[in-house]
Amino acid sequence: MPKDTPTTPLLDRVAGPSDLRQLPDSDLAEIARELRSEVISAVSETGGHLGSSLGVVELAVAIHAVFNTPMDKLVWDVGHQCYPHKILTGRRDRIRTLRQKDGLSGFTKRAESEYDPFGAAHSSTSISAALGFAVGRDMGRPTGDAIAVIGDGSISAGMAYEAMNNAGAEGRRMFVILNDNEMSIAPPVGAMSSYLSGLYANEPLAKMKSLAEGFEAALPAPMREGAKRARQLVTGVSESGTLFEELGFEYVGPINGHDMDQLLPVLRAAHTRATGPVLIHVCTVKGKGYTPAEASADCYHGVSKFDVETGAQAKKSASAPSYTSVFGQALTQEAASDPNIVAVTAAMPSGTGVNIMADRFPNRVFDVGIAEQHGVTFAAGMAASGLRPFCAIYSTFLQRGYDQVVHDVALQGLPVRFAIDRAGLVGADGPTHAGAFDIGYLGALPGMTCMAAADEAELTHMVATAAAHDEGPIAFRYPRGAGTGVAIPERGEVLEIGKGRVLFEGSDVAILSYGAHLTECLEAAEILENAGLSVTLADARFAKPLDRDLVLQLASHHRVLITVEEGAMCGFGAIVLQTLAAEGALDRGLAIRTMHLPDRYIDQASPDEMYQAAGLTARDIALTATQAAGSTADVVPLGVVK
Amino acid sequence: MPKDTPTTPLLDRVAGPSDLRQLPDSDLAEIARELRSEVISAVSETGGHLGSSLGVVELAVAIHAVFNTPMDKLVWDVGHQCYPHKILTGRRDRIRTLRQKDGLSGFTKRAESEYDPFGAAHSSTSISAALGFAVGRDMGRPTGDAIAVIGDGSISAGMAYEAMNNAGAEGRRMFVILNDNEMSIAPPVGAMSSYLSGLYANEPLAKMKSLAEGFEAALPAPMREGAKRARQLVTGVSESGTLFEELGFEYVGPINGHDMDQLLPVLRAAHTRATGPVLIHVCTVKGKGYTPAEASADCYHGVSKFDVETGAQAKKSASAPSYTSVFGQALTQEAASDPNIVAVTAAMPSGTGVNIMADRFPNRVFDVGIAEQHGVTFAAGMAASGLRPFCAIYSTFLQRGYDQVVHDVALQGLPVRFAIDRAGLVGADGPTHAGAFDIGYLGALPGMTCMAAADEAELTHMVATAAAHDEGPIAFRYPRGAGTGVAIPERGEVLEIGKGRVLFEGSDVAILSYGAHLTECLEAAEILENAGLSVTLADARFAKPLDRDLVLQLASHHRVLITVEEGAMCGFGAIVLQTLAAEGALDRGLAIRTMHLPDRYIDQASPDEMYQAAGLTARDIALTATQAAGSTADVVPLGVVK
Repeated sequence: MPKDTPTTPLLDRVAGPSDLRQLPDSDLAEIARELRSEVISAVSETGGHLGSSLGVVELAVAIHAVFNTPMDKLVWDVGHQCYPHKILTGRRDRIRTLRQKDGLSGFTKRAESEYDPFGAAHSSTSISAALGFAVGRDMGRPTGDAIAVIGDGSISAGMAYEAMNNAGAEGRRMFVILNDNEMSIAPPVGAMSSYLSGLYANEPLAKMKSLAEGFEAALPAPMREGAKRARQLVTGVSESGTLFEELGFEYVGPINGHDMDQLLPVLRAAHTRATGPVLIHVCTVKGKGYTPAEASADCYHGVSKFDVETGAQAKKSASAPSYTSVFGQALTQEAASDPNIVAVTAAMPSGTGVNIMADRFPNRVFDVGIAEQHGVTFAAGMAASGLRPFCAIYSTFLQRGYDQVVHDVALQGLPVRFAIDRAGLVGADGPTHAGAFDIGYLGALPGMTCMAAADEAELTHMVATAAAHDEGPIAFRYPRGAGTGVAIPERGEVLEIGKGRVLFEGSDVAILSYGAHLTECLEAAEILENAGLSVTLADARFAKPLDRDLVLQLASHHRVLITVEEGAMCGFGAIVLQTLAAEGALDRGLAIRTMHLPDRYIDQASPDEMYQAAGLTARDIALTATQAAGSTADVVPLGVVK
Repeated sequence: MPKDTPTTPLLDRVAGPSDLRQLPDSDLAEIARELRSEVISAVSETGGHLGSSLGVVELAVAIHAVFNTPMDKLVWDVGHQCYPHKILTGRRDRIRTLRQKDGLSGFTKRAESEYDPFGAAHSSTSISAALGFAVGRDMGRPTGDAIAVIGDGSISAGMAYEAMNNAGAEGRRMFVILNDNEMSIAPPVGAMSSYLSGLYANEPLAKMKSLAEGFEAALPAPMREGAKRARQLVTGVSESGTLFEELGFEYVGPINGHDMDQLLPVLRAAHTRATGPVLIHVCTVKGKGYTPAEASADCYHGVSKFDVETGAQAKKSASAPSYTSVFGQALTQEAASDPNIVAVTAAMPSGTGVNIMADRFPNRVFDVGIAEQHGVTFAAGMAASGLRPFCAIYSTFLQRGYDQVVHDVALQGLPVRFAIDRAGLVGADGPTHAGAFDIGYLGALPGMTCMAAADEAELTHMVATAAAHDEGPIAFRYPRGAGTGVAIPERGEVLEIGKGRVLFEGSDVAILSYGAHLTECLEAAEILENAGLSVTLADARFAKPLDRDLVLQLASHHRVLITVEEGAMCGFGAIVLQTLAAEGALDRGLAIRTMHLPDRYIDQASPDEMYQAAGLTARDIALTATQAAGSTADVVPLGVVK
């Protein structure tokens, strides 16, 4: 859409950060303006994380202008705010492929550019990584400064605290830029004080003083007085912010992250003067500079394609309700009839659908912040008190609370219900967000009950089953996106634990599906029937306890048994195989194949394209079955006239 | 040993905490003295975590005297300091079975007593659990107050920070008792001030003031003046400690944790007055009251049986060096010839053996504290800078950094070397410390290389192999305890990635071992040969990449294939099965059995006893093989005359 392409004469001359460093400061604010237009224009075509990227436009320009990237290592926490950074670092020509198949990742990614020294997507990793680079530099590796840019949400996670704690103790020169878009900029002593209204605690005062004086000396003369006054005013006074200093960091800020006249001198002074770890507190506005974004409640955190003039986002094609909302509704139903049901989310109330329950029962839904470790054990404590907690965490993020699942929940047999959204491949967010491993990492745990929903009606039953299950922990997984469109029961039924269901029976090939790929299995069965093979199709419902009788029966009555799951190796298929092996059901021969995600990471694309890349389409299933059957029958995809 | 049993006339009358509450305060200090003697006496017979238990004798008495346990929920963080608590809560008659088979757990355990409402063993979970109980109480569950007792080390973990953050925001009445045995007790303004030398920051001052005044009012009159003076002195002054207040807690302390005259009034005042979360800062001395412990560098943190009079610990029988020390030596060897090798430990330098490297290269070993999440990503950052990090974390604790292994290391293909000690069952520490799941949770990750050492010579080779492996992440696991006594090479050889080794070849049964159970496999092979079966024995060395050729050959040349591993289901055996299935090697029949830890938790005992309970002895392996072979041959354990 060339009509939306902005005019960017200055930005057009910037091939990379070194070009930025040649420009006079007076041009950099203009560069930022052009860069902002370019980001808006690009994301209007691709969709993506607009709000957070707009918040760091000036910051990205300033960091690249001051620091010597890529020798200096710039680590963006989470990485979804990296679009301006990508445009500045040689990827402008591909910026309109963001989050598309074969396009740029929506996050930073090592494989994509030397300017992305450490990829991300999950939050709160940047300070740890930056400290690693700082050590590398101090040990003689060809590495310059280490800079982590981290948001106020991300820095609240335990992992970031651990990293600050360690970095403070190490005392190495490094920079943590706190990108705070929660705090309004209200300078306490005149405009100048925004340079240095930081907190100078008692302990590291001498060090802080000289650093502060260094900053002041580096400031233009008319600003110097105000800065000094600000420093004197706050010296020794306790206010919020001392947290960082207690952790051993020198603190500078807060400064206005959209004002180049503040960003550049402060970053330069820090760059020149710092000897140890420095926290630079930068206040920004999410969605900054694009009126529809600033006006929106979520600041256009994640958007679909939109019209730049009006801000109107492309409507998603009306389809079945999402699994997420089906979960939220079913949970709310259960909560309505059981006052002991509570829910836990780690900073994703709407992402997980527990906001639906929160609307009706606000005091029974707990958002613990980005704190999966705590969230899981908190749920375990509630379960120990007799409540019935649902812990709603995406598959990929539950990895953050894995030890807590093992040690606090499973080992103690506490009935925490894990609602595992985003199971399987997730589309545009790519491999960092894939829900690939939960089947195995939960299935290995004694006492855990594991379910996967074949469709949204099954999900409703599983919510009811989990609510009723007080005997120990129970987990149910379901994919991202829209359901299949089946009728959703008013109220879920409680399923019999450890029992699958047979959809139809044949005699040659048995397909045993675990989860939402049942649709593809149905289609594969049809392809196989067309090719002359008689097919049994079953939905396992449970990976653990596995329906032993069903699996043994499928094994003994068919030449071929195919298992299908939306997860990695060492998961459902492994449990089926180990069960059959233990029973001696493989002794006399069985053409069994376990179809799962391949042993490599799948780059972002649409979920369908990703499953195609993964070899998990209906046709792949049918092909695997015919090959296992030793059949030479043609496998013709449905809808293709032979 | 009745000679060591102390005389405890008062303690003898305490059947449970309710008896404590009947006693006058003047008796409680004496109870503590008797309790201390009983702990020393018991642990002298059993071995165990003596130092930390001695540090909380008075605290345990005071908490149970003031709070209404078990209705009030007392959660001991880590739980290894719980021996006095166990004696006070009806388990005195079994205290001399601590950490033994069928005896008391060395940690708190829900199944053991209603006074253990939330078990532990891994650190930093108590505040999360206590908050869960507080919510349960507020929602009408039959639960009283929630009290977490947490050490200064444990509270530094990210998880505890997440919990404090959330508990502070929730604002519910709960108690966190910080058991600080790092800080010396140096009262700033006279003896009385130790009651209330806390920090009263600006923000919650009004609230703090009334709480503080409440405390003062609750104090005996002569103490009141000093307390008030202390409060006034510290009001508004920033000192260390404000961290807690910034997180929304009211702070009381520090108080002397061995002085009943401080503990009782402060706990009572807190109990009476608190409306929100309160942190009570208690200073204790690890090993308190037992001279040999106080004099020892590690304060008798973990001891074997000892002589109460002299403190002399029973020498462990001289045997082969431990895997841990073999790792430490081999790592140091590699580090000596490669300046880019660095090591990371999460608060366990001697537990992991990296202290051996630290003795020689102190600047290249990083102890990040109890911070596995940060530690893993910090190692990833160092790897990204070109260093060669070894991240030495026990199998059970690596669960704490699982997402970081997935997201920061494996997905980015960064060559972090994971040295995974305590793989398999670990003995007296029991199921919470079992290294059961790492084979599967790492084996499922694309790009990960996974090894297990069959003996200490193999471990040396694997350290060399990992050091040389720059292509991506690599992990090697090895068990707790002494090696097998084989000769250890001066320097490890670099193994070929993905290649196993065949120890000897037969024709009926193939045993494929992964890890240190090779010893049992050797013995099983001998039993089988005695029973007339011809055995091939192979050591897989790699679970990933699996030696496909070796596995296919074993499958095609034997009727029976047995895999053996010291880990849970969904691990090595699963990878073998999924590989064979994919290759069609199961189509024509194979009596394959995957022997792994059973699908239940195994209680503490000696490792041998635990493996017996797990069904993983040499005889179990031989029996499984003969049964799979359809043989009726007698399986007679070696050394048994038939």
